[in-house]
Amino acid sequence: MTPLKLVTIIAEDVLEDTLAKEITALGAKGYTVVTVRGKGEQGMRENLWEGENVKIETIVSDEVALKILAHLQRKYFDKYAMVAYVTDVHVVRTQHFT
Amino acid sequence: MTPLKLVTIIAEDVLEDTLAKEITALGAKGYTVVTVRGKGEQGMRENLWEGENVKIETIVSDEVALKILAHLQRKYFDKYAMVAYVTDVHVVRTQHFT
Amino acid sequence: MTPLKLVTIIAEDVLEDTLAKEITALGAKGYTVVTVRGKGEQGMRENLWEGENVKIETIVSDEVALKILAHLQRKYFDKYAMVAYVTDVHVVRTQHFT
Repeated sequence: MTPLKLVTIIAEDVLEDTLAKEITALGAKGYTVVTVRGKGEQGMRENLWEGENVKIETIVSDEVALKILAHLQRKYFDKYAMVAYVTDVHVVRTQHFT
Repeated sequence: MTPLKLVTIIAEDVLEDTLAKEITALGAKGYTVVTVRGKGEQGMRENLWEGENVKIETIVSDEVALKILAHLQRKYFDKYAMVAYVTDVHVVRTQHFT
Repeated sequence: MTPLKLVTIIAEDVLEDTLAKEITALGAKGYTVVTVRGKGEQGMRENLWEGENVKIETIVSDEVALKILAHLQRKYFDKYAMVAYVTDVHVVRTQHFT
């Protein structure tokens, strides 16, 4: 098994297609998306994280994980109620991801 | 990136609102919920984990994670088919969580 | 809290029941399933990972995790667009899992 990074992004559902294209352009070979409900930090913005959001997950190399996070930070974090985090995973069949 | 804890709770869907309020009161700044299907341990209770359950996820500090788990253990674990676990994650934009 | 393994399998939805039975037979005491959308590696197979897939999650011992992964590798990885990975988790109420 190979150590890789699971990058999870929680964002407004209107961003799903754009984010999918962007993480793919940055090196992600695949991703899954699921609609989630939830609630975020109050006070930052009206209705922040209330309603439909998507959780996008992609397994990538350390390098691609850092690229994705830097991109999100640069493009979205000031304007959107987006959350992104990284988990260490061990993957079978590595050629799918790197 | 900051190391934090992802707390995952799998519980009967009737508990969703109560659990959401409780983890918020214990310090969680946000959470996501998704309905899952599944199957749990047999024999503990009739229809245990058969049917609609929810998976609640929240990213919190170590301290809040321990508080949430202690609360679940005290209030629910004897009576409900609840599962709770903690994963180490690295988070961008820490002010959302602590 | 006890360290255990979260095994995540992403597979075509037609495999859900079979996979559920197989991981149970290999020692999993429970699992959750959620339908996900997504996109996988292109070129391996027509429509690979396009459309409905399921994400199956189960928390098991190290030993059972290895058995499940070996089984998936032997039976599915040549023929199916399946992804499997393992995450370290800490679990409360261990008797549910081992």
